[in-house]
Amino acid sequence: MSDRHIVKSYDRDLEAIQALIMKMGGLVEAAILEAAQSLENRDEELAEKVRKGDKSIDALEERVNEEAARLLALRQPSAGDLRTVLTVMKIGANLERIGDYAKNMAKRTGVLVQMTPIEGSAGAIRRMAMAVEAMLKDALDAYIQRDPELAQDVRLRDHEVDQMYNALFREFLTFMMEDPRNITACMHLHFIAKNIERMGDHVTSISEQVIYLVTGEMPEDDRPKADRTAVDVPGF
Amino acid sequence: MSDRHIVKSYDRDLEAIQALIMKMGGLVEAAILEAAQSLENRDEELAEKVRKGDKSIDALEERVNEEAARLLALRQPSAGDLRTVLTVMKIGANLERIGDYAKNMAKRTGVLVQMTPIEGSAGAIRRMAMAVEAMLKDALDAYIQRDPELAQDVRLRDHEVDQMYNALFREFLTFMMEDPRNITACMHLHFIAKNIERMGDHVTSISEQVIYLVTGEMPEDDRPKADRTAVDVPGF
Repeated sequence: MSDRHIVKSYDRDLEAIQALIMKMGGLVEAAILEAAQSLENRDEELAEKVRKGDKSIDALEERVNEEAARLLALRQPSAGDLRTVLTVMKIGANLERIGDYAKNMAKRTGVLVQMTPIEGSAGAIRRMAMAVEAMLKDALDAYIQRDPELAQDVRLRDHEVDQMYNALFREFLTFMMEDPRNITACMHLHFIAKNIERMGDHVTSISEQVIYLVTGEMPEDDRPKADRTAVDVPGF
Repeated sequence: MSDRHIVKSYDRDLEAIQALIMKMGGLVEAAILEAAQSLENRDEELAEKVRKGDKSIDALEERVNEEAARLLALRQPSAGDLRTVLTVMKIGANLERIGDYAKNMAKRTGVLVQMTPIEGSAGAIRRMAMAVEAMLKDALDAYIQRDPELAQDVRLRDHEVDQMYNALFREFLTFMMEDPRNITACMHLHFIAKNIERMGDHVTSISEQVIYLVTGEMPEDDRPKADRTAVDVPGF
């Protein structure tokens, strides 16, 4: 077998793994939007679909890991190719976690439909979810196109998601203080908001992987800090 | 260079990486306990130490990944050795996440010391943290000793942590309903409890990696389900 032959098989294997990642990405993007939609429309059927759909996402991640391990063992890639394979595995892990958060969100929808709605909250959460979904789409585009500038842009947009989260956190607190009967619903909504904020962190991590893959360096920690509620909310 | 020579260098490299993982494990264990202790004693200085200490944990994870990538590229290990290297990287990622949760906990301590304490909560949280720290210690022992039975034992113990979390969740809700002035503190405490519960999930993941490493199979999902608040708390 000639060297060229080996190189070609490696490329084909890598492309197959990337196709799995893209498929995962598509499922995860849909899960984010559908989880938010099921909450807004109090649609238990759609929430159930999201919950069940997470199994396919998990199965794809497992396939990504198996194929990547097989590729590493058989093709013994060079340093650069090795970095690509490891990046793909990390992106797979990030996508799987985002899928988990969407599933958790859909679970809470099943609970929240039984409670009095908190005014305006479902719309605000949908907007947050849409922002994260758009970020994810761009992060995966940045990966496929090996575009570190687009990846950097995604990183910076995570700040907006953090701001949306902080605003919601404060809003839920006032609802709870106004009427203790809102407390349980607000706790669940707060968790959902926090989960979307964490999805944003995982999308940021994907973007950083892309930057590392192309430039060989992890970006400096110049992006604005995530969830501030741990440090600056006590004042109100 | 003889084959035996290559094998020996590989073993030495792997041992060096494992030593880094053990060092990480020690720092993470200490961070968990100190974060809980700083909350219980309202000790801002200790909380600050935990927050700052997370940088060393992150730096160690980076070194684990670099060394593992270097080992993969230079030594081109066989399927079994490859599995070990990938496992080490995953354990490193889990430890890094647990460290993040401890840091987040310590951040909230800085906030909580400014509020009226919620009776009994800090002790309950310390007990949860101690349970997770003991699990982590055993999971890392199971890794070093390649002991799938100990790893399986750790997995099952995660159920107790989940139960502690569920009990605390309900307790915080009653405190909030009793007096709206408790709401902010309880939200932070609730987050801390949730973070410890998530640490437990990461320890479980380490245990599952150990089982996979030794037996070649991921354990069946026979362990009791984690956080139930998303599904069965609405009733109260």
